[in-house]
Amino acid sequence: MGPIDDLKTHLGTIHDVSSAAAVLRWDQETKMPPGGAKVRAEQLATLSRLAHQLFVSSDTERLLAAAEAVAGTLDPDSDEAALVRVTRRDFGIASKLPADFVAERARARSLSTEAWREARPRNDFAHFRPWLEQMVDYARRAAEYLGYADHPYDALLDLYEPNMKTRDVNVLFTRLREGTLPLVNAIVDRGQVVDSSFLSLEFDKEGQRAFGVMVAEGFGYDFSRGRLDESPHPFASGFNTGDVRITTRYVLRHLPSAIFGIFHESGHAMYEQGVARTFERTPLARGASLGIHESQSRMWENLVGRSRPFWEHFYPKLRERFPAQLGRIDADAFFTAVNVVELSPIRVEADELTYNLHIMLRFELEKQLLEGKLAARDLPEAWNAKSKEYLGLEPRNDADGVMQDIHWSSGSIGYFPTYTLGNVVSVQLFEAAQRAHPGLTDEFKAGKFSTLLSWLRQHVHRHGRKFFPRDLIQRATGADLTPEPYLRYLDTKFGTIYGIRAGAGAATE
Amino acid sequence: MGPIDDLKTHLGTIHDVSSAAAVLRWDQETKMPPGGAKVRAEQLATLSRLAHQLFVSSDTERLLAAAEAVAGTLDPDSDEAALVRVTRRDFGIASKLPADFVAERARARSLSTEAWREARPRNDFAHFRPWLEQMVDYARRAAEYLGYADHPYDALLDLYEPNMKTRDVNVLFTRLREGTLPLVNAIVDRGQVVDSSFLSLEFDKEGQRAFGVMVAEGFGYDFSRGRLDESPHPFASGFNTGDVRITTRYVLRHLPSAIFGIFHESGHAMYEQGVARTFERTPLARGASLGIHESQSRMWENLVGRSRPFWEHFYPKLRERFPAQLGRIDADAFFTAVNVVELSPIRVEADELTYNLHIMLRFELEKQLLEGKLAARDLPEAWNAKSKEYLGLEPRNDADGVMQDIHWSSGSIGYFPTYTLGNVVSVQLFEAAQRAHPGLTDEFKAGKFSTLLSWLRQHVHRHGRKFFPRDLIQRATGADLTPEPYLRYLDTKFGTIYGIRAGAGAATE
Repeated sequence: MGPIDDLKTHLGTIHDVSSAAAVLRWDQETKMPPGGAKVRAEQLATLSRLAHQLFVSSDTERLLAAAEAVAGTLDPDSDEAALVRVTRRDFGIASKLPADFVAERARARSLSTEAWREARPRNDFAHFRPWLEQMVDYARRAAEYLGYADHPYDALLDLYEPNMKTRDVNVLFTRLREGTLPLVNAIVDRGQVVDSSFLSLEFDKEGQRAFGVMVAEGFGYDFSRGRLDESPHPFASGFNTGDVRITTRYVLRHLPSAIFGIFHESGHAMYEQGVARTFERTPLARGASLGIHESQSRMWENLVGRSRPFWEHFYPKLRERFPAQLGRIDADAFFTAVNVVELSPIRVEADELTYNLHIMLRFELEKQLLEGKLAARDLPEAWNAKSKEYLGLEPRNDADGVMQDIHWSSGSIGYFPTYTLGNVVSVQLFEAAQRAHPGLTDEFKAGKFSTLLSWLRQHVHRHGRKFFPRDLIQRATGADLTPEPYLRYLDTKFGTIYGIRAGAGAATE
Repeated sequence: MGPIDDLKTHLGTIHDVSSAAAVLRWDQETKMPPGGAKVRAEQLATLSRLAHQLFVSSDTERLLAAAEAVAGTLDPDSDEAALVRVTRRDFGIASKLPADFVAERARARSLSTEAWREARPRNDFAHFRPWLEQMVDYARRAAEYLGYADHPYDALLDLYEPNMKTRDVNVLFTRLREGTLPLVNAIVDRGQVVDSSFLSLEFDKEGQRAFGVMVAEGFGYDFSRGRLDESPHPFASGFNTGDVRITTRYVLRHLPSAIFGIFHESGHAMYEQGVARTFERTPLARGASLGIHESQSRMWENLVGRSRPFWEHFYPKLRERFPAQLGRIDADAFFTAVNVVELSPIRVEADELTYNLHIMLRFELEKQLLEGKLAARDLPEAWNAKSKEYLGLEPRNDADGVMQDIHWSSGSIGYFPTYTLGNVVSVQLFEAAQRAHPGLTDEFKAGKFSTLLSWLRQHVHRHGRKFFPRDLIQRATGADLTPEPYLRYLDTKFGTIYGIRAGAGAATE
């Protein structure tokens, strides 16, 4: 055993504790009886504390230093060198936050989310406000502990999207907004009404589940290393490459919820199932970032799951399961219905085209909060004003406005941009896969997705956290992160559906 | 915070880690996809090691010493004094086994059980033998590390049944055997054939489950603090008093498996649900011993679930669910069929009356193994000879003989007697409850079990591990552990069913 193996053994122990906590969280959301909640919170707090203590220990420092001495002699692109590099980065971040700060914030986060859960149904921002103020304060303090060169937002964004800078997001979002708005406006101005009412007939749960599983298996989600359960908030959770689970929520009178949810989560899950087995129980055995993770879920949900070739294959199967609801609807009408563009004040109800406007709104507000230019108490008005500016409409109330998302209640500030990054990256990767395999989408018509999955396995999945996101994108696509493929995609897809001349959106390109 | 609270905080952390491991084991048996097995073994090994390290640490020693100084001034019957006493006992045991021995044995146990799983279906004792030899060797070494006055078996028995001695089990088993054999022989000689063939018609899983749940809820198993799942080997597992889960296995063509299994496991689960909330996350928050635990499962399975008054209430409901299978069977015939006495070479198929003979056989062989009078390689012949002696028949082969149980494969030697202790204690407790509430079994006819459950909560459950098993029995029943109530019960019940004069069994009393 050399020093790198010694480090791996130590990191394996820490991984076991963290992944045990992940199993407990999965259980909490899917199986735990209500009576178990109180002690479960204690178990999770203990496991998190132990994992943190083990990681920021002098043992890690010593093993890491010894491993670095060896790694310095290795190819920087080797797995061993990457493991040491990523561990050093993680160690740096974990060591910067004082243990008391982490523990105190963890408790406050739970209480804050609890307050949000109470306040939202009652539309009672005043009840949530003191907690939100605390969460903003913790975020600002965390940014100071972590340090940054340009903007406090950099310190937080870096936790979710390693090495990504706020100024890069500014540039990207500006281009996206100017590239998307003309198309959005053209569609809204056109005022075309699409019939999607049949999606709100009643679809039984068993049928929804069976169809979702059929598609997920068709994509290549391996159920011998995964499973599908129900939870109020759908998620994917990987404990190791051999056990990556997904959940969904069945809404009997809204077919898209569960089925596109399953496509989405299976995209996340296939990513983690595809990480190199040699990374098992190391810090490399996860996705490269939240943005790259989202690129995978969005690819399978939207680029595959909302595409014409996909439904050419799967629509007859769906109709066969639900003849009463879909018997009179043809594939074309179904395809159009699941791609309706409509401005809505709610992010999770947004379509593919307008979704990013919701993210931009949050990103702008988050920056102002961190800069101290906006106080948490003034958020409702600021939210409504930005909503009007970005979406052309205001929410009915704070419950559907500033309180609509769970993220801020748990202090997850700096997280939202990764959703839009995921959308952008999904198309950049998809284009690269298409360049390598020009007949790619034709295969979808035959229900074949293995070429796409293999390309992703090869260029994205197997690398886990080995590379920084932009490095991974460069290696996979031969280019730096760019929104142009995404803008072209939106323009072509929605221009075609709504009969608007191509180029209305990406006009400035 | 005084020294006892400090100790509790420390023990709470350890409890969190151990109970997290219990959640992971539950998940492994019920939900985990096959691909998760490899890393799950690592996770469990890590959590066990961490819990052990935290417990045998100098921190524990220091906190315990400080707590003992305070506990010495308290009522020995107080919860605090008991907590300190039980922790000292646990600490003593855990500290006696060297960490390397524990780790090495844990690995060997996994491999040994694996070898047993391979060997049994192939009836290949030779394949299992070297592992069995190792397990016996580990057991003998553990006994030496733990220490004993009279017999090495004492050291192991004490792990499962605190403070119980081998010589007490010898006396108890001798009395049980001489008290049971005349009745067994009388029934066998009589040669009466009972029709139980209808139990092997096909009973759908949903109906079995629904009936099992209805009964378990009727007993008082609280599903808001529990749940019922499927697993190949049924078990109950408690993570805290708010989360105690059970599993069962549905055999479509053998109704008794799942339903009596559910009664049995819900007995275990109600015990843990009934432990005092103030013991949460301490070493007191479990059953007093395996024997006391089994007294609860056996009470609900047999004394309640195989009784006439119980079926008076529940048989019409069962027949309603399964009219095709049970329409022509009356309550009396059903009651007799689920109480058939028949000598079988297989323990898990044994009826209430002959079950203990299987345990005695194993107890005798285990003692000889530990004494070094019997070698593991000679076990098959020794098993068959004892089977002939105790049960009057030999198993068809080693798979159904010496390899029929999983216990020895995982080194659980000294465990079997607790099954019979459970049977004995169940009746002693039940008689005491009947003395306090003479109309107890009449209530069963109305589907009412709350009087029994309340009595058990009061006299057994709430105390958790506070008292040694025999102390608990003394407090609950006013008498030391005794087999006489159990022998009377068997004599009356099976004497009546088989029309044999009362006293044939307990003749020497």
